[in-house]
Amino acid sequence: MDPPVAAGKATRLMTLADNETRDRFRHFLTIPTRWMDNDVYGHVNNVTYYSYFDTVINQYLVSEGGLDINQGEVIGIAAESLCRFQRAFTFPEVVQAGLRVSHIGNSSVRYEIGLFHEGEHDAAAAGYFVHVFVDRSSRTPVAIPAAIRAALTPLSIAD
Amino acid sequence: MDPPVAAGKATRLMTLADNETRDRFRHFLTIPTRWMDNDVYGHVNNVTYYSYFDTVINQYLVSEGGLDINQGEVIGIAAESLCRFQRAFTFPEVVQAGLRVSHIGNSSVRYEIGLFHEGEHDAAAAGYFVHVFVDRSSRTPVAIPAAIRAALTPLSIAD
Amino acid sequence: MDPPVAAGKATRLMTLADNETRDRFRHFLTIPTRWMDNDVYGHVNNVTYYSYFDTVINQYLVSEGGLDINQGEVIGIAAESLCRFQRAFTFPEVVQAGLRVSHIGNSSVRYEIGLFHEGEHDAAAAGYFVHVFVDRSSRTPVAIPAAIRAALTPLSIAD
Amino acid sequence: MDPPVAAGKATRLMTLADNETRDRFRHFLTIPTRWMDNDVYGHVNNVTYYSYFDTVINQYLVSEGGLDINQGEVIGIAAESLCRFQRAFTFPEVVQAGLRVSHIGNSSVRYEIGLFHEGEHDAAAAGYFVHVFVDRSSRTPVAIPAAIRAALTPLSIAD
Repeated sequence: MDPPVAAGKATRLMTLADNETRDRFRHFLTIPTRWMDNDVYGHVNNVTYYSYFDTVINQYLVSEGGLDINQGEVIGIAAESLCRFQRAFTFPEVVQAGLRVSHIGNSSVRYEIGLFHEGEHDAAAAGYFVHVFVDRSSRTPVAIPAAIRAALTPLSIAD
Repeated sequence: MDPPVAAGKATRLMTLADNETRDRFRHFLTIPTRWMDNDVYGHVNNVTYYSYFDTVINQYLVSEGGLDINQGEVIGIAAESLCRFQRAFTFPEVVQAGLRVSHIGNSSVRYEIGLFHEGEHDAAAAGYFVHVFVDRSSRTPVAIPAAIRAALTPLSIAD
Repeated sequence: MDPPVAAGKATRLMTLADNETRDRFRHFLTIPTRWMDNDVYGHVNNVTYYSYFDTVINQYLVSEGGLDINQGEVIGIAAESLCRFQRAFTFPEVVQAGLRVSHIGNSSVRYEIGLFHEGEHDAAAAGYFVHVFVDRSSRTPVAIPAAIRAALTPLSIAD
Repeated sequence: MDPPVAAGKATRLMTLADNETRDRFRHFLTIPTRWMDNDVYGHVNNVTYYSYFDTVINQYLVSEGGLDINQGEVIGIAAESLCRFQRAFTFPEVVQAGLRVSHIGNSSVRYEIGLFHEGEHDAAAAGYFVHVFVDRSSRTPVAIPAAIRAALTPLSIAD
């Protein structure tokens, strides 16, 4: 629904390193694991990592960018996401979710996220998440609201 | 599977007040909400409250009672739970989960939980959760391990 | 928020038997378990049973009672729920969720739910769920819409 | 943990088309949405799509490949996943999850998944999921068990 986002995949992937480290992220949120995050293999289920992703992103947008998830005319919806799983999280534990922005377009943003164990420099998991901002009713892409763009800019890393 | 737990329901219910307050709980855990906790009505889904319940309980058992959820021979499984929903939580927000113990039997424990908005004295939701401790393999009830019993005792309120 | 619902707890509890059976439910929905429903103990997490509860309820309200979860002026919100866990579900498996109505008030409904393994007569878990119908904006109780009341009536059992 | 999996990303991505269609999948599983799958925007949360992914995969491995998730010595853990979201799912609705295999290595498998609305030829979402098979205790990669390999082979598409 936002062709420029889909273009240039190879280029964009280059900003996600095989070994992500804590210093490459610009904002952090602490997310404690929950009992039910664990699956039958005794570690946090792969699906739940994506919940950490959209929690750090949306919490930032709400608190720093003024996103109004209940009433706002513009909302961000997921276009694409990816995660690489390297070392497991478990319950109980505190996940430190790092966030940066690798691309800001007219209506879309590509975030990159690293999930860290406490006290570790290397990410246990890392990935990206692309938001397209749309009109709440029509779900057609719109320009990123100015307040959100202003909040995202300090999270940018050089492409 | 643990008949004494099921008996005397009316009596046990009396320890859960219509209006629970912060001073009636003995241990607290901070649980931030997540983006996907919200449902289509813009507040945390009722199901997720129970995840806050078993998170505060199991985190306490692991950190204070030595529960080994991956390898231990004795595990606690849910026998019954209840929640009364009074005021909604939303995302983003921090839930303060209060825990106390209203009954310790031979193999079962009844916890009571209050969920509080930050800075509020009255619970936004409250309920109970009954654990039966069982052998991991046979799933038959066993006596509560001594370390867990010792950890639970300080959380008790007079019946 | 709906005092008549809270009154008479003892009476209402009497409609939930210690051993619920398939013949006591009026509507069934098939809910396959999902991989992540399982927790570290190799069975479906207690929290997830409540998701089966509100799924069978809301699916019925949408398909039979015309509930419009996205735009309707009246929505049903959870006031209280309870579950008794007797035999575990696991993944992969199909849960058969039985639904009946034990009380219809002016603005509230008490549903009772039984969760069954395929081919079994006795419930593996059973509980209740109380909905209060409210105005979507003000969240104050309103009369149950006529179409929903008409849909619920055939699910009633004698109190 | 399985270097050959990480290599050749560009090549592997080529098997996931921008517009995936029903005829390109070899196995289907029906997954009804649940009430809590919906998020505040009135559609299924992005995170939950990944739950559909690992449900169709693991259900197939259990029923066709003899994967024993509770006791087996070899388990499959997630190494990487991706999803492209094109059209939303909602509750209530039935998701038809299509599965194929685009790569079988010594210890790893790359699945591709398409999620379809009933009666639609084009996927509403599509992605991939890489499993690495490991020893349950040591979590080191092992050869894919023969029964699982035999079950996966009919799902393969030409690279």
